[in-house]
Amino acid sequence: MSEPAEVIRDKSLMRAWSRSRRRNGITLALVPTMGFLHEGHLSLIRSAKALADLTVVSIYVNPGQFAPSEDLSTYPSDLAGDLRKLTSIGVDAVFCPTELYHSASDTDFTRHRGTIYCKSEAVSSLEDGGSGHQTWIRVETLEKGLCGTSRPVFFRGVATVVAKLFNIVEPDVALFGKKDYQQWRVICQMVHDLDFDIKIIGAGIVREADGLAMSSRNVRLSPEQREMALSINKSLSRAKVAARQKSCHELKALIMQAISEAGGKIDYVEVT
Amino acid sequence: MSEPAEVIRDKSLMRAWSRSRRRNGITLALVPTMGFLHEGHLSLIRSAKALADLTVVSIYVNPGQFAPSEDLSTYPSDLAGDLRKLTSIGVDAVFCPTELYHSASDTDFTRHRGTIYCKSEAVSSLEDGGSGHQTWIRVETLEKGLCGTSRPVFFRGVATVVAKLFNIVEPDVALFGKKDYQQWRVICQMVHDLDFDIKIIGAGIVREADGLAMSSRNVRLSPEQREMALSINKSLSRAKVAARQKSCHELKALIMQAISEAGGKIDYVEVT
Repeated sequence: MSEPAEVIRDKSLMRAWSRSRRRNGITLALVPTMGFLHEGHLSLIRSAKALADLTVVSIYVNPGQFAPSEDLSTYPSDLAGDLRKLTSIGVDAVFCPTELYHSASDTDFTRHRGTIYCKSEAVSSLEDGGSGHQTWIRVETLEKGLCGTSRPVFFRGVATVVAKLFNIVEPDVALFGKKDYQQWRVICQMVHDLDFDIKIIGAGIVREADGLAMSSRNVRLSPEQREMALSINKSLSRAKVAARQKSCHELKALIMQAISEAGGKIDYVEVT
Repeated sequence: MSEPAEVIRDKSLMRAWSRSRRRNGITLALVPTMGFLHEGHLSLIRSAKALADLTVVSIYVNPGQFAPSEDLSTYPSDLAGDLRKLTSIGVDAVFCPTELYHSASDTDFTRHRGTIYCKSEAVSSLEDGGSGHQTWIRVETLEKGLCGTSRPVFFRGVATVVAKLFNIVEPDVALFGKKDYQQWRVICQMVHDLDFDIKIIGAGIVREADGLAMSSRNVRLSPEQREMALSINKSLSRAKVAARQKSCHELKALIMQAISEAGGKIDYVEVT
């Protein structure tokens, strides 16, 4: 039976925990998550354990990456279940801050800016809450297109919260799932461009037995939606087989047709 | 006679220099500069020496904060003179990288983006050079207005290069001149918002005997322009005395009139 993972809720305590270990030459891996952990996360954590002496998992549903129209308030969570899984797999610390952005009252600089983030101007759920946070990291080319088209504040929110986690946890290596491929690329580029001395590892997609990519949000699919969702992986696999015979344009049409016929609503399909 | 300051040109060597010292509990102060050092810089460095065990001065003319229309190529420099001054004042290391942004060939991610930063799209001198760098830190409220109006890429360039320097040098404390007041506030906010564990100190303006604020660019003023430039400090001092009797609107008009009469071209005057 593993020791229960140490749960740290405070930024300063997290940094002190990390520094006291790194000072002695101990290496740290960080796996940032939004909780409601599934086998995809656990596979990332197993890889992390092989890459560093100690493993830290962060659990934080980041308001900075949700638009006000998105599902921040209903994002699935189960902290008790997550901690059981993390203890069973054996991680060394779990960083789960109640709030990662400062409140409007904890800096002099927000006093004059009380009305700046009024509701009509909010572009992320963070600003909707009036936190006073105003610094955003933009990876200007990679954040555009693909998922960035329908989620224009998503990647700046991800890049920013990941930079904050890096500055708090100060890991040697950090792991991200390639299910969120554009996100992984955005983070690699940010780390490179801003000279973070952190190695970024991308890990492969973990799928259910029937091929559906694991995702915390899958729990919200009805049995019918769950069935429809399989059309994504199926159509991609079929396109992969057809790739030698067909043009990008034809492959794209094939995928779009398969998903539409299954009843799916398409944000984008890109084949290049 | 002081020891010559250690000159470090490579990012990795700089980080290794810093870590080997901090690991032993030695604290570091960083004074970021663009070189051509004057008494304003030296006063910052003297303050730095009192705040930490060791002092690092960086010298780097940052292309990321210059628009293509600005004076990157003619920015004054005198590295030999700077190093003499730094040796005489006694700093421990001088970080003067030849290039702080990666070149387009040193990352996989730039391969597909060769034509992205074409000349017509360039908004800073960095992009003009096609470095492949695409991550920018935006302090979205503070970067607007005042100097941000006439220099729209300046503060994102400053915030980004300072974050890079922080990640390379990893100082405990960093010092900035309040002559560039908006810049100082942008950096304080960025450090706070992104959880950099670095104390930021703002130091007062150092002036010539006749009241002109010291600045590396002053060397380019003709005797006539040098005389005209005094109208800035003079009009501000006069406005300060008049502040009890006059409204902000009247003070602003007073300052604008004095500078215009002296032959100055006004970007902005704000009194609030």
